[in-house]
Amino acid sequence: MSELVLIERDAYETRGVVKLTLNRPDAFNALSEAMLEALERALADIAGSDARVVVLAGAGRAFSAGHDLKEMRAEPALDYYRELFARCSRMMLTIQRMPQPVIARVHGVATAAGCQLVAMCDLAVASSEARFAVSGVNLGLFCATPGVALSRNVSRKAAFEMLVTGEFIDAATARERGLVNRVASPAELDDAVRTLAATIAAKPREAVAAGKGLFYRQLETGIEAAYALASETMACNMMQDAALEGTQAFIEKRPPRRD
Amino acid sequence: MSELVLIERDAYETRGVVKLTLNRPDAFNALSEAMLEALERALADIAGSDARVVVLAGAGRAFSAGHDLKEMRAEPALDYYRELFARCSRMMLTIQRMPQPVIARVHGVATAAGCQLVAMCDLAVASSEARFAVSGVNLGLFCATPGVALSRNVSRKAAFEMLVTGEFIDAATARERGLVNRVASPAELDDAVRTLAATIAAKPREAVAAGKGLFYRQLETGIEAAYALASETMACNMMQDAALEGTQAFIEKRPPRRD
Amino acid sequence: MSELVLIERDAYETRGVVKLTLNRPDAFNALSEAMLEALERALADIAGSDARVVVLAGAGRAFSAGHDLKEMRAEPALDYYRELFARCSRMMLTIQRMPQPVIARVHGVATAAGCQLVAMCDLAVASSEARFAVSGVNLGLFCATPGVALSRNVSRKAAFEMLVTGEFIDAATARERGLVNRVASPAELDDAVRTLAATIAAKPREAVAAGKGLFYRQLETGIEAAYALASETMACNMMQDAALEGTQAFIEKRPPRRD
Repeated sequence: MSELVLIERDAYETRGVVKLTLNRPDAFNALSEAMLEALERALADIAGSDARVVVLAGAGRAFSAGHDLKEMRAEPALDYYRELFARCSRMMLTIQRMPQPVIARVHGVATAAGCQLVAMCDLAVASSEARFAVSGVNLGLFCATPGVALSRNVSRKAAFEMLVTGEFIDAATARERGLVNRVASPAELDDAVRTLAATIAAKPREAVAAGKGLFYRQLETGIEAAYALASETMACNMMQDAALEGTQAFIEKRPPRRD
Repeated sequence: MSELVLIERDAYETRGVVKLTLNRPDAFNALSEAMLEALERALADIAGSDARVVVLAGAGRAFSAGHDLKEMRAEPALDYYRELFARCSRMMLTIQRMPQPVIARVHGVATAAGCQLVAMCDLAVASSEARFAVSGVNLGLFCATPGVALSRNVSRKAAFEMLVTGEFIDAATARERGLVNRVASPAELDDAVRTLAATIAAKPREAVAAGKGLFYRQLETGIEAAYALASETMACNMMQDAALEGTQAFIEKRPPRRD
Repeated sequence: MSELVLIERDAYETRGVVKLTLNRPDAFNALSEAMLEALERALADIAGSDARVVVLAGAGRAFSAGHDLKEMRAEPALDYYRELFARCSRMMLTIQRMPQPVIARVHGVATAAGCQLVAMCDLAVASSEARFAVSGVNLGLFCATPGVALSRNVSRKAAFEMLVTGEFIDAATARERGLVNRVASPAELDDAVRTLAATIAAKPREAVAAGKGLFYRQLETGIEAAYALASETMACNMMQDAALEGTQAFIEKRPPRRD
């Protein structure tokens, strides 16, 4: 089952970068139960490792078309669907809770829970040919859980429009609206991903990990509580060897010594 | 009094589309107490009907210039103003709470509570000649309640700038910032509204209704609670006939049978 | 010590505009403990005065490079850092809590807590040559507290990218994303600041003060509570002389009489 998600360490010739590739190309990388489980396990393993950055990609023509509708439709039952969406949500939240930044590498269509995956990643780099939709409404199934992620990336009217029309937006529009960070031509997509991943992999791991955790926690509180959380994070961060050495090196106008 | 709001069913030659037109053209469709009451009643009636989409428009040169200042100024009293703004807020929240998506059709100026109306609608289509302002501050009356809606559509510095300067923005700027979804030339405005309304009217009603309710609820909670709400909505949605038929049709590569 | 922050009243030839200039040009206006204290005191004095608008600028080549790293690094201690970041956060929150709108005038680099200052101001006008970064991560010190402000100005993926890459964005990008309101050429920067400051200084002070306070309070609540807060603010605002006169003048189609 492990081949559902291909795992490449030190990807992009860069130490600390792990590339995960959704590997059901014939099914447009549909997120079957087995795929959700394989992906969650791969993410959990990385979370506990010394990896620094994760790149999430898709094999074949699509990034991901979302849930596996054939599997979902086979034996309709409310409790089964509750468990399925709860499991999917857990996997999505794992991306946000793990210490490493996760970059979506989007080369083709990302629809429904596939679009949600892009939205839940910390960062996203898209091919200019990528397209995004939360199109469940076309089948009578409103993309409620993808909407949770989408509406935390783009403005509410833009999110609502995608959810009730089911229509696609292109990569340039996705970038303007905040769903992806960078857009590159198909030929230059991997260079753009490598550049971003390598930039982050070069930063001190502990600072990035603490910073990522704080970033999402403080977004969910009022600004006063957010500052209290952030002040504590930053004070602890400043006592770490990497920060003490980094600031000292800055003062002495020399490059920092890093392990 | 009913002629304050014109009601057209199956508008835009599309079944299920209801068009409401604010009809005080000589007063720039000012939201007098009678207008607020008429609009709230019209929205409540639609909410309980089998309508699928609402279009909200204005008669004459303006979309709406906001509160009726003459009426407001006639007998100043704190409790009267409290009741007036509470009533207006109730009407605004009715838009968000009703099951049908509401599209603002903005052809002229939308100022103060008129701009708030645009912001509270789920979607907005504007003429390229439309202009938007929250200009109460020019009269010494900060647009506090319009700011609630505006700051949930556009970034906070952009909202604050409009609120303290009272200045107009044009339709293209409103689109860039997230206040409107689509902009069309005056001659093509109704085509653009029809296209969007017809697209939504063609989706299964129950899925859209449940999705809209969930969308605004989940925006007000942390992401973990949002996923719990959305998972439950989506599981229930999946058990509906429209979704079971829609997904089955997708698997069989045929159009869904719809009632 | 007072010369750390230069204070100019009736700046830009406009009554009611106070210009504060961070005045450590040789240190890129680093926010040392003394600077934080001087700035907080200046802001508190203005808060209690009849000033109408504040402009916050920097002397020399930079707007502000953030914390004073030499001072910070001198005697590392967790409690010291806690107190330092708490003090800095208090100063930042003072900007948001004071009754006058504060405009950042950004002519050069604004990095780390310098970028945070821009984000915490209610409005920002930037030179086309200004550049913005939250670059602490380059030294191993994730910009956690600047991230609180930044993530309340720009979309979360854009904020996260700046925080983990430490990279600069230019003024045009800052404007597109919501970090600044207006961009002008270096030669026209002061004209742009003057225009914005004078526009706001011409509005009734009480309405602006009540509106600013309400604006930030309502952002931190659900929409129903936000409307309740805003309705009360607006009802009280309407009973003030400036609003009664402003609306009456509007009805009579004459300019309002202002004190």
